[in-house]
Amino acid sequence: MKELSDLNHCSQDEFVAALANVFEHSPWVAEAAAVLRPFAGIGPLFAAMTAAVDRAPHEALMTLIRAHPDLANKTQRATGLTAESSAEQDSVGLDRLSDAEYEAFERANSAYRAKFGFPYIVCVRRHTRDSILRDFERRLPNDAKAEMRTAIAEICRIAALRLDQLVVSDDRLPVHGRLSTHVLDTHSGRPAVGISIELTELSELGTSRVVARALTNSDGRTDQPLIGGRPVPIGRYELMFRVGGYFAGRNVPTSDPPFLDRIPLHFSVSDPEGHLHVPLLVTPWSYATYRGS
Amino acid sequence: MKELSDLNHCSQDEFVAALANVFEHSPWVAEAAAVLRPFAGIGPLFAAMTAAVDRAPHEALMTLIRAHPDLANKTQRATGLTAESSAEQDSVGLDRLSDAEYEAFERANSAYRAKFGFPYIVCVRRHTRDSILRDFERRLPNDAKAEMRTAIAEICRIAALRLDQLVVSDDRLPVHGRLSTHVLDTHSGRPAVGISIELTELSELGTSRVVARALTNSDGRTDQPLIGGRPVPIGRYELMFRVGGYFAGRNVPTSDPPFLDRIPLHFSVSDPEGHLHVPLLVTPWSYATYRGS
Amino acid sequence: MKELSDLNHCSQDEFVAALANVFEHSPWVAEAAAVLRPFAGIGPLFAAMTAAVDRAPHEALMTLIRAHPDLANKTQRATGLTAESSAEQDSVGLDRLSDAEYEAFERANSAYRAKFGFPYIVCVRRHTRDSILRDFERRLPNDAKAEMRTAIAEICRIAALRLDQLVVSDDRLPVHGRLSTHVLDTHSGRPAVGISIELTELSELGTSRVVARALTNSDGRTDQPLIGGRPVPIGRYELMFRVGGYFAGRNVPTSDPPFLDRIPLHFSVSDPEGHLHVPLLVTPWSYATYRGS
Amino acid sequence: MKELSDLNHCSQDEFVAALANVFEHSPWVAEAAAVLRPFAGIGPLFAAMTAAVDRAPHEALMTLIRAHPDLANKTQRATGLTAESSAEQDSVGLDRLSDAEYEAFERANSAYRAKFGFPYIVCVRRHTRDSILRDFERRLPNDAKAEMRTAIAEICRIAALRLDQLVVSDDRLPVHGRLSTHVLDTHSGRPAVGISIELTELSELGTSRVVARALTNSDGRTDQPLIGGRPVPIGRYELMFRVGGYFAGRNVPTSDPPFLDRIPLHFSVSDPEGHLHVPLLVTPWSYATYRGS
Repeated sequence: MKELSDLNHCSQDEFVAALANVFEHSPWVAEAAAVLRPFAGIGPLFAAMTAAVDRAPHEALMTLIRAHPDLANKTQRATGLTAESSAEQDSVGLDRLSDAEYEAFERANSAYRAKFGFPYIVCVRRHTRDSILRDFERRLPNDAKAEMRTAIAEICRIAALRLDQLVVSDDRLPVHGRLSTHVLDTHSGRPAVGISIELTELSELGTSRVVARALTNSDGRTDQPLIGGRPVPIGRYELMFRVGGYFAGRNVPTSDPPFLDRIPLHFSVSDPEGHLHVPLLVTPWSYATYRGS
Repeated sequence: MKELSDLNHCSQDEFVAALANVFEHSPWVAEAAAVLRPFAGIGPLFAAMTAAVDRAPHEALMTLIRAHPDLANKTQRATGLTAESSAEQDSVGLDRLSDAEYEAFERANSAYRAKFGFPYIVCVRRHTRDSILRDFERRLPNDAKAEMRTAIAEICRIAALRLDQLVVSDDRLPVHGRLSTHVLDTHSGRPAVGISIELTELSELGTSRVVARALTNSDGRTDQPLIGGRPVPIGRYELMFRVGGYFAGRNVPTSDPPFLDRIPLHFSVSDPEGHLHVPLLVTPWSYATYRGS
Repeated sequence: MKELSDLNHCSQDEFVAALANVFEHSPWVAEAAAVLRPFAGIGPLFAAMTAAVDRAPHEALMTLIRAHPDLANKTQRATGLTAESSAEQDSVGLDRLSDAEYEAFERANSAYRAKFGFPYIVCVRRHTRDSILRDFERRLPNDAKAEMRTAIAEICRIAALRLDQLVVSDDRLPVHGRLSTHVLDTHSGRPAVGISIELTELSELGTSRVVARALTNSDGRTDQPLIGGRPVPIGRYELMFRVGGYFAGRNVPTSDPPFLDRIPLHFSVSDPEGHLHVPLLVTPWSYATYRGS
Repeated sequence: MKELSDLNHCSQDEFVAALANVFEHSPWVAEAAAVLRPFAGIGPLFAAMTAAVDRAPHEALMTLIRAHPDLANKTQRATGLTAESSAEQDSVGLDRLSDAEYEAFERANSAYRAKFGFPYIVCVRRHTRDSILRDFERRLPNDAKAEMRTAIAEICRIAALRLDQLVVSDDRLPVHGRLSTHVLDTHSGRPAVGISIELTELSELGTSRVVARALTNSDGRTDQPLIGGRPVPIGRYELMFRVGGYFAGRNVPTSDPPFLDRIPLHFSVSDPEGHLHVPLLVTPWSYATYRGS
């Protein structure tokens, strides 16, 4: 990672080299920003880059869009993506799709390319595989003009996340969300300590996968957010709380087998940059949850 | 089914023939009860039969116990069970075990028979496959005397259910439980009408299977209990409520995708003859459940 | 009370005498209905009476309206109301108003009479004193035609309740509401037995007064509805549950003093003929309530 | 207020003068601590002072106890309390007792003095008037030795609070509690903004009094804790939330009058130095609360 102050004072070539792939294969965006240095923060730097994109002629934008790979395309993966693209696609599991998922992505990519003549682009770090496929379905009926706008908007989201990972600054781009929980034991009126929690990303087409595990601490919370320091991918999730062992360990009288043992909460994330708090209020005989803040 | 009054007034042979298999292959129990006719109800009739068992000598009880088949034994199934045993074993799915389950039952049966010299007996209508396997594990460490008592107690439970299915009387044996639900829409302060509900019996070793489907009526309840008119088998269950479509159909503003869509409640049944009420209080952003009554 | 069959078969004079004051001082309504006998139920009988009112000329309706006393008018009370009017006004406490309330009623009555030239009429059994005063305020801005319609509608509500108290029939007029509660102890997963409950009608101007006391039974409910067999008066209420002693009596560990002791629920009734269910789910550290059904 | 560093470096006389009344009329405690300077924090300073008390002979302790005024004694108030005592007694409202309360305090003081020969001492800042009277009742049956110990313990609590108000240091004595709330609108899945909240200290004998008013902010919380920066007095409280206007202002359909309008939560505080969080989850038709953390 680079300090913003270093980027403000290095040579123009060094600046462009450092930020060349913030916009995929498009160093001209960094070049346009370089002459506006120094920047007071990463916010103004990013604004300068997106302003350059906004001012760019139609042909340049089309080239920028076409510089992006297809999602989950095995041939392209073999011949080489930028490191950034590769890491992004891997983060959402596009490198380990089930056969059914792979076919669904292939079909969607082909249909999209056939209609619009450019690749489908989405900021994958804000998504799960399921929500990407739904996004495909939703965008395919659009006209080319609207899709071009959407593609540029997604490219800017990708760029913001790349910049956030490249540059250290006192200010932050608003690209991180947070998913947190809290377990209140309303049987004893205390935070529930030591509850084992598992967060699973649910998938309809492919395989659901555990994305976080944690234990509640002395305040009934987890030491780290379940997801934090990055967007919370749009999608469906399960939070599983093991309360049976917790109450048994406190010698709370219960039935045999206990009425409640493993409690699953299913919910969706719709705002990757927001803070979603999903608490559990629980006794051996009841529980409640809500979207908190 | 027979009317109790008919059984009170028929010949002794007819009475014994009718109730010969209430206790498996043991018409002597019905014979002992026959001479005590008339009975004021099915309760006194059953009491007379169990009293006969209580009075029987050790050898007769051992013969009664040995008259029972092994659970899920394919050879015995081929050579023939009583119609009653066969229906009971089928009801809990012992005729369609997965390989892993089949092996687990075989192992348990063999270990039990090897230790005690008589078959493991349990009233299967009060159980799921998982809870039978747990029962095996729990009872295997017992001594023979305790197990003989347990076997007789289970035989009496089996008999009560057989008698309940054979005899019509104004009074009822307390052998039926009930599982019910209720969906309150606390967003609009009304019963939630038309919510699709699915009840699944959860299995760790074998296959989970849907055991009831229902729609909530104008009172937010189901027209029939989810399980009723029989014991509610001991075991773990999932109730799945499709609330996403319900709120969407009422044009309630929500996120995209909706925060809550399909809500699973996981709970265990421990008292097959009890009334277990598992309601759902729900808004698009929160829900609560509890063991009701 | 009279059997409907008796009313169907008695002389016309007896019929009219029995129902003369169903509509205040207006036996002509009963006379009109008398000739349509026999009635299949109290529903058809009431429909015949209201049809007679609907058909009556303007002058007759005005006379009917003017036959009603002012609410809470001390002079009229001294010189005599019909027994029905007197009982109705007493039921809502109009015979024991505070000075502030009395003045408020006087002011409202005078303003109403001054504007419309006829008395303000409301079916007091469906109201509390507070809601009558709010009703005054709401109706005073109306024009005379609308108020005449409202007065007749209220007279018909009064008549329905009077008829319901006079005539026994297999069918019932839909004039009764119900207020019920239920206490679930979600600390132990059982109905809360023996909880002392007090229902108070809250008043802003006058004195709040306790209208029901009850103990929860073995199902956590009250043996009788808190209000039943009559309309549930529109107004604000408090339900007070004494849970501190309940949990102390079960030796549940708690703080000193207990976090929760007497739990008040405040709510309003808006539909006197509906069934309003206000349950309490409670542990020593939490509680919840909702409008149930 | 004094900086700890100043107290560490001033003359011994100045040090003693500054802390002379931390223990009522007993500068010898400050004198004993003065020679142990410098102190690394207010914690060690307080420990040095209480250690001096612990080491003091019986007679000195009795003198210390007797140096305290009776609670709520009008004659003593007229002839003069220390400024500290006076402020403490006023803070809990002992300067404006109802007649019934005044008599109750007089009776309790007299009974206590008659039995033990020294005044009843309690750290009033940790109490409400009701809880002081309950404390009297609880302590009166004790023997003199136990009461002397309790009196000294209460004197140390009083001293800790006085010291906390006198001395600025990086560390803090653990003498502050906190009472907070949070309103979640589970109808719209958001914090409830702009809800008017009133906190009332409930009294059985005297007058209940409002001790805090607040509006919820954009996070559904209050900008300041309802009580903070001091002990939360032991006692019974009401939190009143005006939710009717909130939902009406958001055009949420409801009944007329609204089912829920002003929601009172009644609860007790038992741990003055703890953090008590009492949230409200609310829709127009339901609400829940719990002791949070």
